[in-house]
Amino acid sequence: MKFVIAPDSFKESMSAKKAATAIESGIHAIFPDAVCTIVPMADGGEGTVESLTSMSDGDIVKVEVVGPLGEAVTAEYGIIDHGEIAVIEMASASGIELISSQERDPLITTTYGTGQLIKHALDSGVKRILIGIGGSATNDAGAGMLQALGVSFKDQNGKELPYGGGALDLLAEIDISGLDSRIKEVQIDVACDVSNPLIGSNGASAIFGPQKGATPETVEILDRNLAHFAELVKRELNLDIAHMEGAGAAGGLGGGLLAFLNARLKKGIELVIEYTGLEEHIKDADYVFTGEGSIDSQTIFGKTPYGVATIAKKYNIPVFAVAGKIGEGVEPLYDIGFTSIFGILKGAVQLEEALKEGEMNLTFTVKNICRLINKLRGETNETTIG
Amino acid sequence: MKFVIAPDSFKESMSAKKAATAIESGIHAIFPDAVCTIVPMADGGEGTVESLTSMSDGDIVKVEVVGPLGEAVTAEYGIIDHGEIAVIEMASASGIELISSQERDPLITTTYGTGQLIKHALDSGVKRILIGIGGSATNDAGAGMLQALGVSFKDQNGKELPYGGGALDLLAEIDISGLDSRIKEVQIDVACDVSNPLIGSNGASAIFGPQKGATPETVEILDRNLAHFAELVKRELNLDIAHMEGAGAAGGLGGGLLAFLNARLKKGIELVIEYTGLEEHIKDADYVFTGEGSIDSQTIFGKTPYGVATIAKKYNIPVFAVAGKIGEGVEPLYDIGFTSIFGILKGAVQLEEALKEGEMNLTFTVKNICRLINKLRGETNETTIG
Repeated sequence: MKFVIAPDSFKESMSAKKAATAIESGIHAIFPDAVCTIVPMADGGEGTVESLTSMSDGDIVKVEVVGPLGEAVTAEYGIIDHGEIAVIEMASASGIELISSQERDPLITTTYGTGQLIKHALDSGVKRILIGIGGSATNDAGAGMLQALGVSFKDQNGKELPYGGGALDLLAEIDISGLDSRIKEVQIDVACDVSNPLIGSNGASAIFGPQKGATPETVEILDRNLAHFAELVKRELNLDIAHMEGAGAAGGLGGGLLAFLNARLKKGIELVIEYTGLEEHIKDADYVFTGEGSIDSQTIFGKTPYGVATIAKKYNIPVFAVAGKIGEGVEPLYDIGFTSIFGILKGAVQLEEALKEGEMNLTFTVKNICRLINKLRGETNETTIG
Repeated sequence: MKFVIAPDSFKESMSAKKAATAIESGIHAIFPDAVCTIVPMADGGEGTVESLTSMSDGDIVKVEVVGPLGEAVTAEYGIIDHGEIAVIEMASASGIELISSQERDPLITTTYGTGQLIKHALDSGVKRILIGIGGSATNDAGAGMLQALGVSFKDQNGKELPYGGGALDLLAEIDISGLDSRIKEVQIDVACDVSNPLIGSNGASAIFGPQKGATPETVEILDRNLAHFAELVKRELNLDIAHMEGAGAAGGLGGGLLAFLNARLKKGIELVIEYTGLEEHIKDADYVFTGEGSIDSQTIFGKTPYGVATIAKKYNIPVFAVAGKIGEGVEPLYDIGFTSIFGILKGAVQLEEALKEGEMNLTFTVKNICRLINKLRGETNETTIG
């Protein structure tokens, strides 16, 4: 019997790796000879580096970089697949959580640190880079990141632009001659679950600016500056990113990655599925387990259990989801592939206790699912024999 | 497809009937054509009258009787099976919960009201009486109950004894000539989960006296009085109840029922299974659902889900248990027949909320179990066809 185990983390309770191990324990308690394949999963959002790295026995690399406000921060990224792949979350270097709410100001925040992480990964010799771009503090179209990688953004006096989306109106000349040449040899994939264009009423500044500290006035400035940036990119690279789908992600970082680094923008879960070879594992499996701390109406918008279920459905393989919390609106999940969703709690307890007992409860629940499978399989055999 | 649904109540959340209906909804959501048989269940303990009566669409009968301290109380019992069967809980007339802890005194408490309930049931023309005897406030060997049914217990002056175990030392003569003659024509079954003898260090007074308000001194008096009572019963009926198994249940009410009413003492769950014809229903079923508010280390000592699982095991039918709370020590339950045990909670919530959402969560969980069954059955068919 072959099981694929592909959960995301149970936030605040257990990492994806611990969840996978707890599921495996439950399966082996009932089916000691079952072959269990743990597939590292994540959805490209927060926790992707942790999940993929820990589950693949990869390495977490810590690097001192320039933070969103120009200060030094220690960021980290993961190296997996025997050094072939780097997994980066931009938020680790340029994220909104790195600065207090009073300091948030997308006129001056920069993605420079994210560029440094990419550079560090290139130094490590990786062949592919998976970048999650959620949680940014920035609105600079990735200009900072590109500066870190050798692109030069100059004003009309030939002076390098300072950090931040507020300075992009001064841009007069883009010089890509200094761009790190190794970029051409690596594949860069961007986990991007939003489709917003770079500019306009549905663009980066208007939609995501306010949560990064932009006032209505600064939103206007930022949007105008991004339009100017797009204009110069078009002139330099003959590529119009102003209205490209996803170019507005992460304050325009999506656009910068698209235009200068030839990156692919795809849904996070799709990229993770591709990177981890999930489909190859699932197609021969008898049963699939997935799960996440919470399964709810958001799950269908590209969370890990959603991705796992869609692949399992393709091969008509039962997929059981387990969750610490089952929210409203999960009904559509059954249509897209979920066989069943089970809560793991054993009773009414405080959240703190529930989080602490997560692994134990997860194993318990999986055991009971497996007992059911075992009984029904036994039933079947008997019927066949009888 | 045939399902048997046989839960107990989910205390403080839903009656057994509501639980059964919630389970049925879950099954029918996935298997609209499934035949669901709801079997009224209880374990002979608290709630047995409510469960069996409500699930059988029986009648609750209210009767004003003599309470444990001689005061008037309104007790109730159930009539089910088209008037054939009465279901009585002695605690409704003579229970410890009817009096405050300060008033508890087994020297004076009486089972008279329980006898009145039996008499009332006889008046109603029932053919069988199921009596649950848990939760008694008494230690009178059922003398009060027997007085209500026409037995006379006289002192050496020919005067009727007053209520209570404290007066039994005065017993000089037992006159059973006045015993309600209809008793002979009905079968009386006593749900009794304890095996204590009437007297001695493991007897009614020593073991259960203290929780009914007996001091060490009164325990001694009560035990001596029960021994005296047994002595006279032996002389009168040629039956020695002093060391009979279960005679010590409910302050010796077990012994009184055994000796005078020719009652059978059996485990509550066994009697309920017998009365409800559970086995007949289960043997043709494909799947069985049971459940209770809490499933824990006590379940194996004769709780409803235990009884249901043992019958299901006899016919090798999968039995799924659902519970609001899963306690420690449930592992032995799998050996005696439980296929799986699932908690129904969807997340960490306050107990109050969990209780309120009980029916919804129960239906949700059963749906997910049925989806799993459905998928595995589908799988099987495909394999067979392929």
